[in-house]
Amino acid sequence: MKQMHLFAFKNAGVGHTAVGLWRHPSNRASEYKDIRYWTQTARTLEEGRFDGLFIADFLGLADTYGGNADAALREAIHVPVNDPAMAVSAMAAVTEHLGFGITVSTTFEQPYGLARKLTTLDHLTKGRVGWNIVTSYQESAARNLGLEHLIEHDERYVIADEFMDVVYKLWEGSWEDGAVVMDRARNVFADPARIHPANHRGKYFSAPDAFLCEPSIQRTPTLFQAGASASGKAFGAKHAEAVFFIETRPDAMRKLVAEGRELVAQQGRAPQSVKFLGGISVVTGSSDAEAEDKFAEYLRFVSEEGTLARQSSLMQIDFSGVDLDQPVKYIENQGIRYILERFTKGDPGRTWTPRQLAREIGKSLGGLTLVGSASTVADKLEELMDTTDLDGFNICDYMPLECLPEFVKRVTPELQRRGRLRVEYDGTTLRENIAGANRKRLPDDHPGARFRRETPQSAILPEREGLISVR
Amino acid sequence: MKQMHLFAFKNAGVGHTAVGLWRHPSNRASEYKDIRYWTQTARTLEEGRFDGLFIADFLGLADTYGGNADAALREAIHVPVNDPAMAVSAMAAVTEHLGFGITVSTTFEQPYGLARKLTTLDHLTKGRVGWNIVTSYQESAARNLGLEHLIEHDERYVIADEFMDVVYKLWEGSWEDGAVVMDRARNVFADPARIHPANHRGKYFSAPDAFLCEPSIQRTPTLFQAGASASGKAFGAKHAEAVFFIETRPDAMRKLVAEGRELVAQQGRAPQSVKFLGGISVVTGSSDAEAEDKFAEYLRFVSEEGTLARQSSLMQIDFSGVDLDQPVKYIENQGIRYILERFTKGDPGRTWTPRQLAREIGKSLGGLTLVGSASTVADKLEELMDTTDLDGFNICDYMPLECLPEFVKRVTPELQRRGRLRVEYDGTTLRENIAGANRKRLPDDHPGARFRRETPQSAILPEREGLISVR
Repeated sequence: MKQMHLFAFKNAGVGHTAVGLWRHPSNRASEYKDIRYWTQTARTLEEGRFDGLFIADFLGLADTYGGNADAALREAIHVPVNDPAMAVSAMAAVTEHLGFGITVSTTFEQPYGLARKLTTLDHLTKGRVGWNIVTSYQESAARNLGLEHLIEHDERYVIADEFMDVVYKLWEGSWEDGAVVMDRARNVFADPARIHPANHRGKYFSAPDAFLCEPSIQRTPTLFQAGASASGKAFGAKHAEAVFFIETRPDAMRKLVAEGRELVAQQGRAPQSVKFLGGISVVTGSSDAEAEDKFAEYLRFVSEEGTLARQSSLMQIDFSGVDLDQPVKYIENQGIRYILERFTKGDPGRTWTPRQLAREIGKSLGGLTLVGSASTVADKLEELMDTTDLDGFNICDYMPLECLPEFVKRVTPELQRRGRLRVEYDGTTLRENIAGANRKRLPDDHPGARFRRETPQSAILPEREGLISVR
Repeated sequence: MKQMHLFAFKNAGVGHTAVGLWRHPSNRASEYKDIRYWTQTARTLEEGRFDGLFIADFLGLADTYGGNADAALREAIHVPVNDPAMAVSAMAAVTEHLGFGITVSTTFEQPYGLARKLTTLDHLTKGRVGWNIVTSYQESAARNLGLEHLIEHDERYVIADEFMDVVYKLWEGSWEDGAVVMDRARNVFADPARIHPANHRGKYFSAPDAFLCEPSIQRTPTLFQAGASASGKAFGAKHAEAVFFIETRPDAMRKLVAEGRELVAQQGRAPQSVKFLGGISVVTGSSDAEAEDKFAEYLRFVSEEGTLARQSSLMQIDFSGVDLDQPVKYIENQGIRYILERFTKGDPGRTWTPRQLAREIGKSLGGLTLVGSASTVADKLEELMDTTDLDGFNICDYMPLECLPEFVKRVTPELQRRGRLRVEYDGTTLRENIAGANRKRLPDDHPGARFRRETPQSAILPEREGLISVR
């Protein structure tokens, strides 16, 4: 029986997957600026034996809808949004096992600097950092972050691939194990003979020198990816140790997992070594009826226009021109047709208005929404895992400091009782959370492992004499 | 009687100002990778009523000495070095008043991204973040971070000046006070009419869009600068709210402060509104004799070659070719001559060997080193302030978790007794620590204040009807 891997899915802002829920009287999303919001969330997740917390990111404004950011600002769609890496050390200080998956784009950073940032976090968390590798899809990000225009989609992945080569050279190949000798008598903190320049001179990046950091416990942070395009999936199959996606239909999830494992195998990697996580939402309560009531109440706060504005940004298709009450069959809008197929679960004969569609999307508080008592939710989670071959779930935090504590209070013990969820953690690092005890470093079949150095027996500390001596 | 402003000065690595001291048996510098090292340091400083903690940074390897990084790696000279921003939230979680001055370069970041990082930290710390603005002097940083070669010195400051325009537009001018209305009934989180695009299109940077973050308590983080060149000083006089430097001679400090205040006045700013902080080291104990003994013991661990290698990097002059025991008057080396003038306190007639010089520099554990009992140190601090017009000190943490706790235990109460150091903090933000209670935002005569918007009375929330409604 496959164990379940659980992550929570947030962003460092007010609005994420369920647009409009900030208006719920007990919604605390606007507390995202407060450290205690983060430390309390982290404690809850560790108590609930989650693998980790994912923090998504948005580097530009969601300005597709109507060609401006008004709807995004008005409805808190991905804005305001803080830097997702900054609260990690505070959360790490109050937990011991929980991992932190931080989203950073390869399109707007230099690998030499990004590698240091993530290694620093891996040191401070003692090996609990993950990197959600993204290439960024927003024009707004590009035009504010030093590019004239967003780089074309497939080239972004070519750049990302070279980016990974550089960071592997720094993380895996620069400082050998044992390079830090701390030999006080000989005045050698680190042995230069065991520290190697990256020697990278590529098409997009240059990093000739040695890494600035000591190796952290994981060396390469645990790698996550969520690309949905062909090149995104190929990139994930090569580099990712966990892949996540947001889908609302189990049949689509099953297809994505099967296709994903096939792509992983084509890369010469063990197909089960990559964990596939489905983005879902959970509404639970003391009974099915209580959970259903809660869900109905939440849905009252989902914003229709906001939901379409968010889809506009994610799909880069402007829905602002459509009449919300004009039935879809009369609207020549490919995006609406796409939504129709994706969210309405196969009822092609029915006529929909955009408003009805927005409500339908809204029923997904984030991915497929599971509603019910702990036992009902556990049944559904087990069934989803078993029918789709998913390894676990990325659970959207649509009501911060409320829906995850509810999950942890009710569903965690139920899953533990069924033997589906860890009672205690196996290891101390994020990689061990997803891959098992003692797997602190990249597996040997991972492309990053190619950049490792064997430490030769001859590389012993050279004797040095003369100038450096304790007076 | 002027109150004293106190900062501690560290970097996020093993070796900083006093090269070789990592070898002292009770030196704990190598614990920099551990969160508790940082939280304990922060607690100590707040207990000691420090204004804040400065964290220096090095983005490249110190590879001037001998033309390679061997000495730097061997002696832990500025390497390993972690990202200085990453431990801030953990430190903020265990303190309430202490500020955090983070070093970030304007040469390798985009202002739109950097502004978000610092605003995030300002939110999480509730207004306790400072930015030490640097332009970076290392070729190694340039060649690993996307530049072919380091940009020429004066142009770096031209770039930095435009950089500041962009971040002021984002911090001061983009989101008006009150833009976040959180009107649940009308479904308006933030009012787009009160959020303005930066509209920046300059020579070096482009940032057309609105800021991604809500304004933080300070809006612009408290600005620090330490430039020593003419263009660096001019930049500091324009932008900095506190300037710090490292000097070993009081007469040189006095000259720097006088010149600094004159430059500030030339910018149309109140000369006393900028705080001048001298970098110093303090060795204290229960008596003068105990402190002197400790100092002598510390000096045993200062590395001569390492000290010259560090100076090589700071001055960008390779000292590796000199014979350490050949008297200086026979060496044609301008760097050695410079050191001779800077560190030997005026004894031009004497003949020095480079080894003797290195020892002389080493006696500065970081800046001018004050040695003695609490009362002796307090005397010297008061005298330094009064004779140099300094506003306070940036105290080097040459023995982490030891020298600062000693200072706090002994010197803090002595300074408080003399009315020179706060007993309680006046406010809750870093800016209030340096400028006084209720001064949470930039002063009106600061160039960043130009970018503020008056919120006109007419800018009330526009009525909206129709699409957005709670179902």
